[in-house]
Amino acid sequence: MVWVQKEIKLEQRRRGFHVITDEVLRQIPELKKIKTGILHIHIKHTSASLTINENVSPDVLSDMENHFNKMVPENMPYYDHNSEGPDDMPAHIKTSILGNSLSIPITNGDLNLGTWQGIYLCEHRNHGDGRKVVITIWGEE
Amino acid sequence: MVWVQKEIKLEQRRRGFHVITDEVLRQIPELKKIKTGILHIHIKHTSASLTINENVSPDVLSDMENHFNKMVPENMPYYDHNSEGPDDMPAHIKTSILGNSLSIPITNGDLNLGTWQGIYLCEHRNHGDGRKVVITIWGEE
Amino acid sequence: MVWVQKEIKLEQRRRGFHVITDEVLRQIPELKKIKTGILHIHIKHTSASLTINENVSPDVLSDMENHFNKMVPENMPYYDHNSEGPDDMPAHIKTSILGNSLSIPITNGDLNLGTWQGIYLCEHRNHGDGRKVVITIWGEE
Repeated sequence: MVWVQKEIKLEQRRRGFHVITDEVLRQIPELKKIKTGILHIHIKHTSASLTINENVSPDVLSDMENHFNKMVPENMPYYDHNSEGPDDMPAHIKTSILGNSLSIPITNGDLNLGTWQGIYLCEHRNHGDGRKVVITIWGEE
Repeated sequence: MVWVQKEIKLEQRRRGFHVITDEVLRQIPELKKIKTGILHIHIKHTSASLTINENVSPDVLSDMENHFNKMVPENMPYYDHNSEGPDDMPAHIKTSILGNSLSIPITNGDLNLGTWQGIYLCEHRNHGDGRKVVITIWGEE
Repeated sequence: MVWVQKEIKLEQRRRGFHVITDEVLRQIPELKKIKTGILHIHIKHTSASLTINENVSPDVLSDMENHFNKMVPENMPYYDHNSEGPDDMPAHIKTSILGNSLSIPITNGDLNLGTWQGIYLCEHRNHGDGRKVVITIWGEE
């Protein structure tokens, strides 16, 4: 069994959806050693999230942002948690809808994603800092 | 430690929500060997998803489809990604809301699901092909 | 490798979002033994869910409940599954949006959550009983 775990800070990104597959993979050369296993990535925040989606078309990224802004609008009269601005509470809700972590199969030293799948960082705040993630990989050599 | 991983193609299904627990279990007789462990199932697509929900009532399946169609409508004016038809971008959004993978506890050679829980394939395209999934199980004998 | 798995019944809670991190941690003193690993928690129901979100402000909990009630309303004309009351079908839908399980990294004998992250039980029924969860932890000492 191989276990590798590291905490890294992702590059700061503007509000919206961003493909970060390569940035994640650069951090874990140890992946190559694992024949069968799992990569787990956890974001240590409650106003940014992780998902897997289409890795080529920029308009998927912007359509996702536009739809989540409609489905979870700012300034709803029933929001009491507004201390950090109108993007505060929607960011919490979007994070729980999309999720804080991903588990991805590892096969023969590589992520076993579909051809069109990429890892997304979803930045829900207007001015989020670089986000911290914990990457854990485990499996058999 | 036991590790088993296989990639399979699920039967083709029409747009909507479908219980696939038995189809998944048929693929992994090795489950019986694991006393304590986890089953992970990952769908290699960005327009179909996996979730766990009620495994008996057909009207839960159709109500889910109807509600997701309302919550993520087709033909929104802010969608730019329409190249494959009106079901294209909603399928991407629904996939990120529901998720690409499930992790389920294994106890004494069986999935430790609740009585009413089943694994759902959520087919978001009008004409999706049979969907590829990677099943990974690991645990102690 | 350490494997620990136990099924517990959480305290009964009223409809809404509740921070349960401490109740979960009390059940698994074995966590202290694990240097690098994963905690997985699975809820064995289709009308209550688990998520990670802000662990301090009570208004995040109530804003979440209010927003999910708006995004997944009761008594929609397209619901056929109403046998257990108007909160029945919305509870199923909310459960699939939020999810049935969480995977959280373990580092040096503790959950590696962000400062503001807590584990939430999301009770979607008006009169849910105490909910059963399966907690599995695995990792290296």
